[in-house]
Amino acid sequence: MTLGSRPSAVCRLVGSMTALACVSLAPPAHSADAPPWLEPYRAPAQQLIAAARADDFAWRRLAELTDTFGPRLSGSPALEAALAWAATEMKKDGLENVRLEPVMVPRWVRGRESAEIVQPFPSPLVMLGLGGSVGTGPQGLEAEVLVVGSFDDLETRAAEAKGRIVFFNVPFTGYGPTVRYRSDGASRAARHGAVAALIRSVGPMGLRTPHTGAMNYAEDAPKIPAAALSAEDANRLQRIHDRGQRLVVRLQMEARHEADAPSANLIGEIRGREKPDEIVLLGCHSDSWDPGTGALDDAGGCIATWDVLRLVKKLGLQPRRTLRVVLFTNEENGLRGGLAYRDAHAGEDHVLAIESDGGVFPPTGFGFSGPDLARATVETIATLLAPLGADKIGPRGGGADIGPIVRAKQVPALSPDGDAGRYFLMHHTPADTVERVEPDEVSRHVAALAVMAYVVADLPGRLVP
Amino acid sequence: MTLGSRPSAVCRLVGSMTALACVSLAPPAHSADAPPWLEPYRAPAQQLIAAARADDFAWRRLAELTDTFGPRLSGSPALEAALAWAATEMKKDGLENVRLEPVMVPRWVRGRESAEIVQPFPSPLVMLGLGGSVGTGPQGLEAEVLVVGSFDDLETRAAEAKGRIVFFNVPFTGYGPTVRYRSDGASRAARHGAVAALIRSVGPMGLRTPHTGAMNYAEDAPKIPAAALSAEDANRLQRIHDRGQRLVVRLQMEARHEADAPSANLIGEIRGREKPDEIVLLGCHSDSWDPGTGALDDAGGCIATWDVLRLVKKLGLQPRRTLRVVLFTNEENGLRGGLAYRDAHAGEDHVLAIESDGGVFPPTGFGFSGPDLARATVETIATLLAPLGADKIGPRGGGADIGPIVRAKQVPALSPDGDAGRYFLMHHTPADTVERVEPDEVSRHVAALAVMAYVVADLPGRLVP
Repeated sequence: MTLGSRPSAVCRLVGSMTALACVSLAPPAHSADAPPWLEPYRAPAQQLIAAARADDFAWRRLAELTDTFGPRLSGSPALEAALAWAATEMKKDGLENVRLEPVMVPRWVRGRESAEIVQPFPSPLVMLGLGGSVGTGPQGLEAEVLVVGSFDDLETRAAEAKGRIVFFNVPFTGYGPTVRYRSDGASRAARHGAVAALIRSVGPMGLRTPHTGAMNYAEDAPKIPAAALSAEDANRLQRIHDRGQRLVVRLQMEARHEADAPSANLIGEIRGREKPDEIVLLGCHSDSWDPGTGALDDAGGCIATWDVLRLVKKLGLQPRRTLRVVLFTNEENGLRGGLAYRDAHAGEDHVLAIESDGGVFPPTGFGFSGPDLARATVETIATLLAPLGADKIGPRGGGADIGPIVRAKQVPALSPDGDAGRYFLMHHTPADTVERVEPDEVSRHVAALAVMAYVVADLPGRLVP
Repeated sequence: MTLGSRPSAVCRLVGSMTALACVSLAPPAHSADAPPWLEPYRAPAQQLIAAARADDFAWRRLAELTDTFGPRLSGSPALEAALAWAATEMKKDGLENVRLEPVMVPRWVRGRESAEIVQPFPSPLVMLGLGGSVGTGPQGLEAEVLVVGSFDDLETRAAEAKGRIVFFNVPFTGYGPTVRYRSDGASRAARHGAVAALIRSVGPMGLRTPHTGAMNYAEDAPKIPAAALSAEDANRLQRIHDRGQRLVVRLQMEARHEADAPSANLIGEIRGREKPDEIVLLGCHSDSWDPGTGALDDAGGCIATWDVLRLVKKLGLQPRRTLRVVLFTNEENGLRGGLAYRDAHAGEDHVLAIESDGGVFPPTGFGFSGPDLARATVETIATLLAPLGADKIGPRGGGADIGPIVRAKQVPALSPDGDAGRYFLMHHTPADTVERVEPDEVSRHVAALAVMAYVVADLPGRLVP
């Protein structure tokens, strides 16, 4: 299809497949104050956006990955099989230097697990053990529950914790303020003699939906089992407690660590035509938690960043610098992939690092961390994303996986805005599946990433001189 | 508080606790064409509505019941403990003739269960065995999956079913058109040699939320295990199938029937002051499925119908006829309570039967089945519910539990309208908990039931002369 015969807009079904979303294919109006260097990028940006939105390829690939391999916890055969599949597919896409760089990763195994109320009357609870937790032993454990609302509350009632299951019932007000109960709750409780820790799931109420996630043991505290309850079960324990009834819970978890297992960071590139040693890095993580199929966290980010290179290749848009996609391993419970990448690649010249790990929603823009001059350039490039509504550049770009190389080498970092409400509803739950995102949303996410990555990789000068 | 000092409206927080809902306490304007017999009921109707909405007693009692005893499957100790508790509480409320009428009920036990994809790659599925299903034996079973979209589709492909797991992937278009795959799917598949049946859950997509429910075996087909998958897992199997990949699933279910167990219908009354032998029956069912705590299906209906009698008693409004609440047992998988009630009470004079088993949402009115003259009376009474927005009388009232007595004795039947969208999202799932309904909603449900039941019980003449 030539440009002359191209339709003026692309419309497709979104959401519940009953609403049409249309995006103009006309190039954005030339702003009076746009710098001359931007002009040559209007056409390729338009091409990239149109190509990303021409079909649902990225969504279908995301579905194929998550359908075929399912959850991909570090150390699992599923993760390694998914990586082997992705490497083969990358080569088919024409990416260069496709390689699996070995990384040893922790292998935590959930095993069977359950929790139930024993008093006031036996009844099952919906729970997920926290990643990294020890198990209860085959006999399980049973104890009266101490309900607390905060770490301060626990300290006030420390004398009551001995021999109890401490339950942190902290309402979800955002990930930052509540995730520390998941990370640190067990050791905080164990220091006061608790035999196990329960938390209210770190997320908004779903449909009896528990959220897992990593926890850590402090060195100065006994290791006690830790699990998350659904918000409804958390409410239930709170109400039983508030009625003055004695509350006894039984917990059984087979959770254990096995020996570290081999995994890998998967890397693919489009080598730069002029400055191949200058790298624009696009990152995501290949591992997921085990209850869902990790479509949003973070298979979607991997498919999207990888799709940037696929589209650039398909359109024959070889940029001046190298575009490199890295599917990092073991973000969820170890960050071994990000650390190994830093150690192996710190000697290379990274111009920019982008991470997509907040769900493949249509971004309203990007967060950016880096020098002001680079921010101004990124803001100018973002004007090309106005047709997608993705032209806002906010503070704080980055991501867990790119974090080590970004910090080690002061690499500017960019990350697409997410939709925190939708993201944390499914985050680390069984509900993280490809149904959580529509094909058109993934395409718009890819389009925004593609324009940003391609233009930075092709700029006449470095993003940070 | 005297009427003179009463505020003109009651407002309280609803929904996410951020919105105010206000209902006028002023008596409805007297309609020019309202019959004279209605006038004496304006004041008690107003009293009942105000009393129901004065506090969150009904919601708190619903929470206490479902929190304390949890799921109440027929034959379980939890159901019997809940009934004993309810009988004691009813007596405390001042209800008369509180009694447990013994009923033997089936006892189906789920046991442990799981399903997983074996090919194209091992991965767990989210499932719930169907109530009444046989188990798989301790070794489980593993077979290639035949995906069909309807019973007709199965018949067309009958030759492929032998030795397979037949998966009925029928989109939820409403309970009526899809529940037959849950009821009959296993025997339909077994007739063609299938080794197990899977269905797409009968309900809209939740958050990887499976729906259980009763299934039945036909006498002419082998009994094969049957389970429901979450909508997301159903989609996943369909997509794998559509990609042309060989799909093998492994199913393990300990499900079994044990010997029938003793249970009971719980009955409480307010005896009529003039015609105590004429009965207005309010019904609900005490049993629930086992994954959730059965707050909407149907503890809510029980708390609401029971609360009608509590409020009538509390306000000293003894009607001419007897108000009787029956918490029927075993609605979900046997209907033994409804059948036993019919057998024991068919000789009594039932003026009207009301059932609440569609969720304790604020009704927009009632469905009614009965003679036209009675319908006109019910429509007139419903004008008293205009302040609640519950004044519409539609076709088809009734309920599973009251069904046997209604059919045996041609009793007029009434049932509050529900909210099918919200109801079927949580229906027979782990998410059926008290969080699904707000205190103010339960109060409005109670208020509508109370006015309707009280006025019919107190009418000068019978509803059906």
